[in-house]
Amino acid sequence: MDKLKNMDDMNNKRAVVLFSGGLDSSTVLKIAIDEGFEVIPLTFFYNQRHKTEIGHAKKIVKFFNLKNHVIVSLDFGQIKGSALIDLSMDVPKNRIKENRVRQDLNETGETGNVDDIPVTYVPARNTVFLSYALAVAEVNMAGDIFIGANHIDYSGYPDCRPDYLRAFEKMANLATKASVTGEINFKINAPLLKLTKKDIIIRAFEIGAPLELTHSCYDPVEGLACGVCDSCILRRRGFEEAKIKDPAKYYKG
Amino acid sequence: MDKLKNMDDMNNKRAVVLFSGGLDSSTVLKIAIDEGFEVIPLTFFYNQRHKTEIGHAKKIVKFFNLKNHVIVSLDFGQIKGSALIDLSMDVPKNRIKENRVRQDLNETGETGNVDDIPVTYVPARNTVFLSYALAVAEVNMAGDIFIGANHIDYSGYPDCRPDYLRAFEKMANLATKASVTGEINFKINAPLLKLTKKDIIIRAFEIGAPLELTHSCYDPVEGLACGVCDSCILRRRGFEEAKIKDPAKYYKG
Repeated sequence: MDKLKNMDDMNNKRAVVLFSGGLDSSTVLKIAIDEGFEVIPLTFFYNQRHKTEIGHAKKIVKFFNLKNHVIVSLDFGQIKGSALIDLSMDVPKNRIKENRVRQDLNETGETGNVDDIPVTYVPARNTVFLSYALAVAEVNMAGDIFIGANHIDYSGYPDCRPDYLRAFEKMANLATKASVTGEINFKINAPLLKLTKKDIIIRAFEIGAPLELTHSCYDPVEGLACGVCDSCILRRRGFEEAKIKDPAKYYKG
Repeated sequence: MDKLKNMDDMNNKRAVVLFSGGLDSSTVLKIAIDEGFEVIPLTFFYNQRHKTEIGHAKKIVKFFNLKNHVIVSLDFGQIKGSALIDLSMDVPKNRIKENRVRQDLNETGETGNVDDIPVTYVPARNTVFLSYALAVAEVNMAGDIFIGANHIDYSGYPDCRPDYLRAFEKMANLATKASVTGEINFKINAPLLKLTKKDIIIRAFEIGAPLELTHSCYDPVEGLACGVCDSCILRRRGFEEAKIKDPAKYYKG
């Protein structure tokens, strides 16, 4: 009986997963599925330079045979201020040399080097993303929100840090009808937070996340990855270190 | 010299004002202008039932001769769960009897009665609004964000409470490049938080907010206010108690 009850609980628990179609969020999606959540993948179209990732997201949702993919259009048109949405700005290439990014890490993972936040930073992006996730979570009575934030991908992004995520979670539980009435206690899950890209790739490989369907590049050319933006460099180095073949197709190099 | 320097500081300070075209946010807009801020009004189009408020917002921006009105389209289409965006749900009429809503207030203003959050509650709306405001603020190097939240308009909305706003402010200062590098310390200003509707109207009247251009109704008919939704009832009672003539045109009553 207890086992049946637990299975029933397991079947009833829902999670909203921020899901871009990238390597990290695809791994997180699989982790949430494996943990028994009924997942609601949430993908944003914000006229991003790398909007090809949305096609990848749809393929991965199909791969997992998920029925309730939520795709939200975000109007960042008047916000701009980032090379990921402002096409007049250049995406930095070959910015990451050697292991500089990883040197930002410290043992507690509490703080990173904020002196070199790149122009691919989108103002308040994770805050806007998580706020929508909170709305979707509340409407669907989902207590868990998953995000693929981590300290490598962080590479200077303040809204991927543990103290930020904790502050968001605290705010979220004061923000909604479902939380203030005690129906839901929202939890922000960031299972990749303290993993290196190498370790994320090994994890993804082990649990069967569809690496071949994921997209990472900030500045793709006709669907091919550039190979030299921050995101490509981190991905390629991660696969090399994990000794796993990267299935992505690169335009250069 | 000091006076000149102060005037210079005053001229340089910027604020993003969440601005719906309603009574409260119009009052807040005038307060921010009077405090010397270069204001950036931020209005959302989210296919709200009362989208007529956006026309009011534009007229008020013109009235104040402001140049940088930011209007953002929000996609709440797949979120729903509120009578303000889901046209299959009814807006409650004559819900507020006597002074029931005001009885929710306590001396500290820290908590309200959350047992009766109305169906006009939009999931995580202020969190989404404030997140966008944070993005606009960061891009424009504006340290101050103004919101018209108050305990009467609260009428059960959790995201109008002081502890929520404080938690958002804390999160905001961990979320952005501008705050973690120390360039900006974001402040969430809610100057109406502890005012009654009567006191807001008196304040608006005294400082010259254009009450005749504001819109409050949740469920307007051909641009006329219904007179009996929560928002209309609070507005009408406020004007009565303030002994000021309500310039709004009502469809009923």
